[in-house]
Amino acid sequence: MFLCFHGTVVLGTNAPFTKILGFASTNSSFRIAIFADLHFGESASTDWGPLQDQNSTRVMSNVLHTENPDFVVYLGDVLTANNIPIKNATKYWEQAVWPTRSKNIPWASVFGNHDDMAFEWPQEWFGNLGVPSIQCSDSSLATGSDQMADCYFQGTTRVELLETDAQHDLSHSLYGPESLWPSVSNYVLEIASYKHPKSPAALLYFIDSGGGSYPEVISNSQARWFQQTSAKRNPSSRIPEIIFWHIPSQAYKQIAPQPGCPIKDPCVGSINLESVASQEAEWGIMDILTDRRTSVKAVFVGHNHGLDWCCPHKSLWLCFSRHTGYGGYGNWPRGARILELVEEPSTLKSWIRMEDGTTHSHITITSASRMI
Amino acid sequence: MFLCFHGTVVLGTNAPFTKILGFASTNSSFRIAIFADLHFGESASTDWGPLQDQNSTRVMSNVLHTENPDFVVYLGDVLTANNIPIKNATKYWEQAVWPTRSKNIPWASVFGNHDDMAFEWPQEWFGNLGVPSIQCSDSSLATGSDQMADCYFQGTTRVELLETDAQHDLSHSLYGPESLWPSVSNYVLEIASYKHPKSPAALLYFIDSGGGSYPEVISNSQARWFQQTSAKRNPSSRIPEIIFWHIPSQAYKQIAPQPGCPIKDPCVGSINLESVASQEAEWGIMDILTDRRTSVKAVFVGHNHGLDWCCPHKSLWLCFSRHTGYGGYGNWPRGARILELVEEPSTLKSWIRMEDGTTHSHITITSASRMI
Repeated sequence: MFLCFHGTVVLGTNAPFTKILGFASTNSSFRIAIFADLHFGESASTDWGPLQDQNSTRVMSNVLHTENPDFVVYLGDVLTANNIPIKNATKYWEQAVWPTRSKNIPWASVFGNHDDMAFEWPQEWFGNLGVPSIQCSDSSLATGSDQMADCYFQGTTRVELLETDAQHDLSHSLYGPESLWPSVSNYVLEIASYKHPKSPAALLYFIDSGGGSYPEVISNSQARWFQQTSAKRNPSSRIPEIIFWHIPSQAYKQIAPQPGCPIKDPCVGSINLESVASQEAEWGIMDILTDRRTSVKAVFVGHNHGLDWCCPHKSLWLCFSRHTGYGGYGNWPRGARILELVEEPSTLKSWIRMEDGTTHSHITITSASRMI
Repeated sequence: MFLCFHGTVVLGTNAPFTKILGFASTNSSFRIAIFADLHFGESASTDWGPLQDQNSTRVMSNVLHTENPDFVVYLGDVLTANNIPIKNATKYWEQAVWPTRSKNIPWASVFGNHDDMAFEWPQEWFGNLGVPSIQCSDSSLATGSDQMADCYFQGTTRVELLETDAQHDLSHSLYGPESLWPSVSNYVLEIASYKHPKSPAALLYFIDSGGGSYPEVISNSQARWFQQTSAKRNPSSRIPEIIFWHIPSQAYKQIAPQPGCPIKDPCVGSINLESVASQEAEWGIMDILTDRRTSVKAVFVGHNHGLDWCCPHKSLWLCFSRHTGYGGYGNWPRGARILELVEEPSTLKSWIRMEDGTTHSHITITSASRMI
């Protein structure tokens, strides 16, 4: 662990949407574990749902123990909110961040399509057996129509979830500009250089790819926000930039290996067992990313549990993470994608750490020679 | 107008779910206008959406002026909540009941699938033009995350809508038993006999057929509630019973004339231009209704804007109403189904009153000879 904080206050117009992390020494690594698609709260009203969440907690604990990362990214679908029959789903979010909190590791989160969904009432609850007994009201004193009002599970909003996340000192999650509403988790984290602590060594961009309460899309406003923010923060494009969002963009479809076929060079990965489930529309983000060819190194997404590859796309890499949670579809072994940034010589590597401790799919995303 | 109220307090275990209306004289009629699928708030953020609501108001005013009914039934889809980008949609509900209120006519409502839907964000708002300026917060003082929390439009719940409706003295809408949650508008209204004011001359049952925040279904619990309530209120099956809900049950599909073909005897109606969009499942309500062959006379639904027929089904009639609102799909001329109950000789008739003052599709649902 080589983490040091340079504080959380940054001057300038982007200040509210930026926090700073930092390398601790010139040649140290800064390691990030990506927890994707945990899906806490799946089948929350059954016996096996909560057991599944215990398994997800174990996966995270194992990965954190083995990799000892400096930072964790929660890459969306932390919850399966559409399975959570309570008004306030934040207790499940708290369960998801607990393994990271308990090891005193800082983290940041970005939303997926399942995080703020309304509860989907199972059809069978309307049949002979009826609706099971649920403690749906926060207040044991609520009665009558007040109690019934508590018993509509319309989804805990992105803002409410982020409030819960951001109340922890270790959380680096931010609301992002109000102008990007209804998307929320749009912000930048800076990894400060050890040699020049006031200069960033890398920029991590978190972008909300929508879904749940609104369409699965990165809006034109978000694309322009990224364009303006990166131009201001990194005008010479000399600082490496890494992008995190949840739902693959349509560009992932263009470069995807044929589902079910081997993942061949130059792609690197271990599972390729479904089609890319991409965003509903594309409003400019990919063109803007590929225009910043010297700085933007890679995009990391989750969403597809049966894909874990990285493939090149023009000047950057498009990567899936690895299904981390026992919640969510698919029974492929669980793991987490790891990123490792080295400041000097400037390098970005990645691999997948499995629950059982093994690793695979090692890739050098940018070698020193390719970094500016 | 021959209306008199016998009060709103009824003894017995069903008391909270029952109110009483009454005939005013032995041979007078009791006339009900059904306003179905008004869809207030459709395209609320455009210029033409609110104009459409003005047209719906005019339809209701014309029908009320021409028919002078004793009672109005709002038969669901009063709102197109999925088009309403404000946190609290009740102001649109208030617009919908205004024509009836302004004429001092009592009413009752039952929910449709669009009434408590979450807002569906238009895809184009994420494109180049961006999200239009919306006054989404009730409080002009709200800022930052509080303001953003107000700007998620998760749907105004059935309970909240009914609270707004039921605060009017003229409203006879009721919440129904909590045991039937998440369905809400399940209750009985009694039309008292003039000759024997303590005896009902007819019972009107309102049943929530779901949709929106939960599946489009009448649950087994609701079916059993109807069975138990009707057995208690009308043990001899001597009192005529009339049923109102929004989404046609699957039985409507079985008896429907071929879409696009003429409506032939014994069916009566004027438009038959689409397939029946029925509930997702059937959990017993139709069997229970047809078992009460001597008392249950007819079911009235909305939902399908391109259908306005009545057809016999076993011992009862299954009837569509008539698309009343300018909101909602379809440009067929607007109107309202009218029911007329006569106590002596006991008769139930129906017709459709159009916006332009014409009538059609007259039918005698139960003649004196068929009434018990």
